[in-house]
Amino acid sequence: MALGKDYVGQDCSLSRALELLGERWTLLVVQNALYGVRRFSDFQVRLDIPKAVLSDRLAHLIEGGVMRKSQYQTAPPRYEYLLTDAGIELWPVIFAIGVWSRRNLGGEPPRLFRHAECGTDLVPSGDCPKCGPIEPAEVEMYPGPGPKRMDPVSRAMNRPRRLLEPVIPEQ
Amino acid sequence: MALGKDYVGQDCSLSRALELLGERWTLLVVQNALYGVRRFSDFQVRLDIPKAVLSDRLAHLIEGGVMRKSQYQTAPPRYEYLLTDAGIELWPVIFAIGVWSRRNLGGEPPRLFRHAECGTDLVPSGDCPKCGPIEPAEVEMYPGPGPKRMDPVSRAMNRPRRLLEPVIPEQ
Repeated sequence: MALGKDYVGQDCSLSRALELLGERWTLLVVQNALYGVRRFSDFQVRLDIPKAVLSDRLAHLIEGGVMRKSQYQTAPPRYEYLLTDAGIELWPVIFAIGVWSRRNLGGEPPRLFRHAECGTDLVPSGDCPKCGPIEPAEVEMYPGPGPKRMDPVSRAMNRPRRLLEPVIPEQ
Repeated sequence: MALGKDYVGQDCSLSRALELLGERWTLLVVQNALYGVRRFSDFQVRLDIPKAVLSDRLAHLIEGGVMRKSQYQTAPPRYEYLLTDAGIELWPVIFAIGVWSRRNLGGEPPRLFRHAECGTDLVPSGDCPKCGPIEPAEVEMYPGPGPKRMDPVSRAMNRPRRLLEPVIPEQ
């Protein structure tokens, strides 16, 4: 194929990042992991994608050091998928794309983001306007005016909760 | 194809943005436009991609309101591709991905970014640490320690220059 999969000869950090993150669905997997999704079946419910595609994206993210697989039960063995520190650091990227999209493509946001400690909505840079730069774990997401999915995993997200706090699907 | 091209049923701003920006090469086109590339042939030199692919990405960006086509010469008619305001607002996204990539994937940056007026390097949020939030046109890029491409378009970028300042290829 003429295009090449690895942005041959591109000299910049952006192209290296896009090799890892630029595939369809990959950033949506990372976003859901930031929102607290950890289990394969919960990612699947949220993303509505075939198992094979989700497996491939998770494997690619693990290989790239963005996620890791962790056993949470031994009999039968069960695994969850967690963001590494590098993965958690993608929060500013995810947030910046969301800010851009709301400003330029319209649509009401299903979720809003504030500094958990002081309750102030984040500014477009992702900082708290009162307290300055904050870590993803200090961010609380809460329901916005936009439409929300009503599957069990999404419903568990439709109340105020910190980023990275594990989602337990509502039945 | 099972996957679908439009992230059917996804409720968030990120998925809407990825419909527009998630195709291979698209963000690299926007990045080069922020760096001052305007002409089809200059994008081609910088990106090393087939004409048909570049045409397709530019058409998609124009359709999505991120770029516009502008005639700069009548005989013979010649056109350049400019970012719209929405396109210029992608700077924080591009910058955030670059910051993440340098921190997590390594590699020396070919370009660094500072506030043109005061000369202070930008912090990871994209703000000037002395002056606060700044516009893309107030950002000056200057050569970093990383390897640089040496084609005529890239060479014109290898000296301090503001974002969006038109690139004139060095022969």
